[in-house]
Order: sequence, then C-alpha cells, then structure tokens
Amino acid sequence: MKKVYLDNGSATKIDPRVFEAMLPYLKEDYGNAQSMHSLGQKAKDALENSRAAVAGLINAPVNQIIFTSCGSESNNLAIKGVAYAYKDKGKHIITSSIEHFSVLQAAKRLGQDGYEITYLPVDKYGIVSPDELEKNIRKDTILVSIQNANPEIGTIQDIKKLSEIAHKAGALFHTDAVASAGVIPIDVNELGVDLLSFAGSTMYGPKGAGALFYKKGIRLVPLLDGGIQESGRRAGTENIPAIVGFGKACEIAKEELKTNSEKMAGLQKRLINELPQRIQYIYLNGHPEMRLPNNVNFSVEFVEGEGMLLFLDQKGIYVTSGSACTSRALKMSHVLQAIKIDPAVAQGSVLMVLSKYNTDEDIDYILNEFPPIVTQLRNMSPLYAHFLKTGKRMEAGPGTDYEHHHEVEDS
Amino acid sequence: MKKVYLDNGSATKIDPRVFEAMLPYLKEDYGNAQSMHSLGQKAKDALENSRAAVAGLINAPVNQIIFTSCGSESNNLAIKGVAYAYKDKGKHIITSSIEHFSVLQAAKRLGQDGYEITYLPVDKYGIVSPDELEKNIRKDTILVSIQNANPEIGTIQDIKKLSEIAHKAGALFHTDAVASAGVIPIDVNELGVDLLSFAGSTMYGPKGAGALFYKKGIRLVPLLDGGIQESGRRAGTENIPAIVGFGKACEIAKEELKTNSEKMAGLQKRLINELPQRIQYIYLNGHPEMRLPNNVNFSVEFVEGEGMLLFLDQKGIYVTSGSACTSRALKMSHVLQAIKIDPAVAQGSVLMVLSKYNTDEDIDYILNEFPPIVTQLRNMSPLYAHFLKTGKRMEAGPGTDYEHHHEVEDS
Repeated sequence: MKKVYLDNGSATKIDPRVFEAMLPYLKEDYGNAQSMHSLGQKAKDALENSRAAVAGLINAPVNQIIFTSCGSESNNLAIKGVAYAYKDKGKHIITSSIEHFSVLQAAKRLGQDGYEITYLPVDKYGIVSPDELEKNIRKDTILVSIQNANPEIGTIQDIKKLSEIAHKAGALFHTDAVASAGVIPIDVNELGVDLLSFAGSTMYGPKGAGALFYKKGIRLVPLLDGGIQESGRRAGTENIPAIVGFGKACEIAKEELKTNSEKMAGLQKRLINELPQRIQYIYLNGHPEMRLPNNVNFSVEFVEGEGMLLFLDQKGIYVTSGSACTSRALKMSHVLQAIKIDPAVAQGSVLMVLSKYNTDEDIDYILNEFPPIVTQLRNMSPLYAHFLKTGKRMEAGPGTDYEHHHEVEDS
Repeated sequence: MKKVYLDNGSATKIDPRVFEAMLPYLKEDYGNAQSMHSLGQKAKDALENSRAAVAGLINAPVNQIIFTSCGSESNNLAIKGVAYAYKDKGKHIITSSIEHFSVLQAAKRLGQDGYEITYLPVDKYGIVSPDELEKNIRKDTILVSIQNANPEIGTIQDIKKLSEIAHKAGALFHTDAVASAGVIPIDVNELGVDLLSFAGSTMYGPKGAGALFYKKGIRLVPLLDGGIQESGRRAGTENIPAIVGFGKACEIAKEELKTNSEKMAGLQKRLINELPQRIQYIYLNGHPEMRLPNNVNFSVEFVEGEGMLLFLDQKGIYVTSGSACTSRALKMSHVLQAIKIDPAVAQGSVLMVLSKYNTDEDIDYILNEFPPIVTQLRNMSPLYAHFLKTGKRMEAGPGTDYEHHHEVEDS
C-alpha cells in the first residue's frame, strides 16, 4: 500500500544526510563535550560547529544560541526564564490565545505564581492584531510572546510590527518559530525579536534537539541548573548526536529553503483547491495567503474526526487533528476555538502538514482516497441524516461531548 | 596507538545492540508518539516498552517512570518539582555537600526562592552519617536528597538507613543514581526511596534520555509545561530513538550486571593496588570498600592536574579530573574539598571510571604509560623540587590559584 505522511508538524523523517552526520557521534565519537581529552574535544567541536549552523538559519550571532532538548523546552525557558529574571521590573506577560501549549501552559504556571497573563484574541484567520497588543501593553509588561506561525492553521503573524510595539513599551519579545523554522525565511534582526524558539524534529532533523536564540544582554533564569554547559543557562550533558543532526538540518534547510518551500506551496495549492471540488461542506481554516506553505487545515462537516483519521490511516495516509502535544487528549483544538469555528464542525478537522518529500502522486492519492471515506462516515452520521432530511444543521448544545472525551491526568 | 577510555562517568560508548535497537526510530519509524495514526502508535508502543525496561532495572512499577532528557533534568525535576508542590507543608530541604552539581545548583536556586537548604557534611571517605541527617531533619523538612553513589570518588551511601530517617520525620527521599544505575543493583523498594534519578548515557545508552522514578501519589510541579506527554509531568516531543536506546541499555544492564560488575571490580583492584606500587605519593580518594566497582580516583601529589590529563591524552588514555559538568570550569572539585583533601594534592587528581569494555591489556597499558608521565611532570614542578631539597611540603596559601582558574559565565 502507498504511504503518504502528512503529519510533518508532529515529526519529520530524518534527512539521510542528517543521519549520516549524526552517525559518528552514535558510534566512535561518544565523548562528553565537557571532557578535556581529545574525545571530549571532538564532541565540543561538533557542538560549536552545530551552534554556528543553527544560528546561521536565523541569522543570529553564534554565541546567542542555547541548545535545549526540544521546542517545548525552548518555549518554557524563554517565558519562565525571562519572567523570573525580570520579576523586579514587572509581572505582566502578554501572549495570544492560539499559542502552542508549551507557551500557554508555561504562562499558566506563571499565572499561578503571581504573574498576570493577558491572552490576546485573534481574528477568524488567526491573526493577532497589532492594535490589540498596543491596547493591552503596559508599563509592567516584561514579555510579549507571539508565535511566528501557527502549527495548526499555519497563519503567519506580523512579528516585525508586533515586536516594535513591544519594544516601544519597554517589553521583551519572544516568538515561537517551531512551526516556521526551515519552512519560511527567518531573520531575527528583520523580525526584531529578542528571543526565538525552534527545533530540529520538524525540519528533517532528529528528535532531542531544540534551540533558543536570545539577544545579547538578556537575562534568563535557567530551568535546568547544574553544570556549566550552555554558558550556565542549560545544564545537562549535551546531546551531541541530536545537536549535530539539528545543525546539519539547519544547514540543509537554509540551502534548500526556496526550492522546498515552492514545491510544498504547489502541493498545498492543489489540496486547498481540489479537495473542496471533491468533498462538499469542507472549509479551510486559517488565512488564505498569510500562511505557511506546508499547512493545510480543513474542517469537514458531518464527520467524526477520530474516525476520519483512522480510516485515512487504513489507507496509509497519516494526518492528525491538530497539535501532536494534545491530539491524544482528544479535546477540541484551542486554536479552532479561538478562531470561532463551530464545535460541531471543528471536531471533523484534519491537519495536513506537507514535507519536502511529498509528491504530486501523494496528492493524487489523497484526492482519490479521501472523498469516499468522507462519504462513508457521513452515511453513518445522524447529524448528516438530519441535515439531508431537514436541510438544517443541528445545534451543538451543552450536552455535546466534543470536548473532554478524556480527562488529562493532572500532576 | 592504543586507546584506553576511562571517562565512563562522563559518557559511555553506545552498546552496538543499543544502537541497533535505536536505528529504526532514526530511519523509517519517525512518528511522534502523540500522533494517533499507525506511525504514531509505533512510536507510542516503543515508548511504553522502553518505560517497562527502564522501570525493570530499578524494580519500579512501569507507570512511575518519567522520561527526561538527561540525569541533570531528572535531578532538577525531583528537587524543584517536589519543592514547589509541597511548599505549603514546609520549605526545608536537606542534601549533602558532595552531590552532583545538578542537585546542588537546583537546591541553591531554591535557596534564592525562599527555601532553606541544609548541606550535610561527609567524612573523609565521603560518607553521609545517618546521625547527621537525624540531627538536622525537622518538621518542615519536605525533602532529603542524597546520592546513591558519588560520581567522582565512587562512595556508596547507606540509602536504606537514610531514607528510613527521612520517612520517620515525614520527609520525602530522593536519590541521584546516575553514577550507580547499571553498575550496582538498585531496587527502589529495598532502598526505600520516593524518587530516583538515572540516565542512559553512562550505561552504554545514548545521550538524550534520562528518567525519574517517583512513588505513586507524589506530587511534582513540572519544569516543562505544555502537552500531555509523560502524564503531564514533562512536556515536549518524546525523544523516541534515545528512549528506545535507554530502554535497551537498561535491559542489557540488568541481564549482565553481575558479570560486568565483577569484571570491572577486578580491573579496579589492579589499578588501586598496582598504581601506588609504581608511583610514589599517590593517594586513593573515596571509600576502600563501599565503592562503585568502576571507580578509581587518585590524587597524585606534586603534579599539575591539567598537564597530567593532557599527557595521558597524548598516549591515548582518556581520563578526567572530576565531574564532566565542571571539568571545563577548572575549579577544584567540591567533592575533594568536602572530604578535606589538601588543595595542593587535590589539584593533581585523576578520575578513572571503567566500563565493561575495558580489559586487562588496558590496565597493563596504563601501568606502563602513567608512571613516566608523573615523573616527567614532577621534574617540571617547583613544589616537587622544594620537597626533594627540604623534605617538606609547601603550604597552599591564600595566593594559590588552584581554585577559580576561570570564572564561569553566570546567567
């Protein structure tokens, strides 16, 4: 059976060149980068070469990169690290309602710790309005954290404008670029950001390596205290194989960004244009233009989301309903909620994130296999039967269990 | 040239069987464990199988393991996680003066945050006295954190006795077992610990995976907030290849523990007995019996430690002066300081941590190559010249710069 992997926002296949670069560090070059002998020095050199490559992707100075274990750690370090370091200056933080959970939950944690968090709303496309930021920013605002692009609906924010407003008010600006790094060009100077998070596992690099860019002079309270790794900002043995892979992934991403981006945009266009020609009552989520070239997010009305994913899976098509960090929780996406998608429609959403490996044949396959699955599911749907009979949609009342299918075990 | 790697406390060579187990997850099985499709399910299955193997090594229930990125993260999560969760009960924490930096610095951070930290002293062998713990424990003590074995001098603590004292006083007990896991048998029930940290990178597993065992019912405030990974206790995409490697490493370690331990103990005995026969004025640090079977730590008088490491390196012998997390800081080891080694002697210390890969030929090689290096270095030493001339040792006065050769950049 053909396999079409379209869950590249959750994890990407490691580029074979990345794997080759990692290989020596999984085998003979196993030294600890902090050891003074030559095997340690080899690891240290690899670490610093990778730092240069990672910095290069976002046009940052090489010394302003902290390696972490993943994008979520980078986001936590940025937000909590700044919050704790600048608490004497103020305790107000602004973010948006459609951030990744690692930003939202880090902010929530600070909220329990005496900080005040403002969540900016977004419009129906998921855009954060600069006016809203201007209205909400205060003298005691120490940090504004708005994502570069949304991982679920692909909407790209006007970071340059937003960071200007933050700086005018004396606040620092962080952007989560996990979804955008390697997909669209990023230049920390052009964006005007003070901190930026990204990771290797969504750009054909390995899991286990993330990075946080921070502008020179910015203070951060570490989350992981201990040794002197990462200039004392992130203790713990450096994951050299993953970091080397991340470095190589950044190098390749920079080189091939334009080609890959154009290729994905072509496939994206086909899905966005041709799927609605074959499936009735499906709606694109996110902005039509200010959008990552690899992101396609449709709400398919009158189908049950989980069933759709499983039926597609049986055809070898791997998609997801939203963020990987929450999909097993089976809650309605907070992003679709924020852009005010009707819950009855939102629960039939499907997120397809393309990669450089996808082909026109993949798209042909989806265009053939997806519509009959929708038909099959709709034939089982009482909502659809009601709609066919009455021409009317049922209201999603308070009794609906689209949300909270499962409760997440809380710590 | 022959290579003899004796820095296995900093990093170990990955076991080829571990590498083989990881390989599919670095290649075709690249799914995110949180994705609902079959590639995600494959990752999820690998994650849970590894959890069982990791729990198995320490005889813990499978659901009580949290995967982290490294031992330092496990220690930070244990200490800060408990401290923040139980702050209403008390704000007093007890640890020892010879803990790993990730414990000491985590405690120091809490000290800046309104917690009170007691650092228990150790005797000349590095033993924490149960009486000292008994004397210092209080009603508001929420956590006692004492390492299972010291990574620098190998001294093994009486954890069973210490945890009993903690529990009698109503405090939780954490042990850092990064140096001991896979080297000596560990059973969390026998030790009576509530939390235990360990990691894969020092037991022939890959860098990038650590674990924290926590007893059922213990509350932890996460360091990394975000998705629902690890039951909400540690957000971030799971590093499946590293976790799979860690699992395989635990499985192998459990199976081969006795054989490997006996083998290393034999080599250890040779180094401890035969090196002093060939080099004058060298002193074993740590306990003669209550000691990890892979640990050898000598102070070599009248030599400059860094020079010794570099000369050994040129002969293909890879050793270190102490903990990898601090060796590049070139400070005097806090462990040797705590066991009251004369600073002039301590600065010539050499740490050799054996692995299952070391052989009798390795030991022969060291016994041949090490003594002439010491002779060569002593011939350059004014301290040694003074000693030869006068028969007296020079005092290490306040002018000595054994400490703080370099200042660590502080965040």
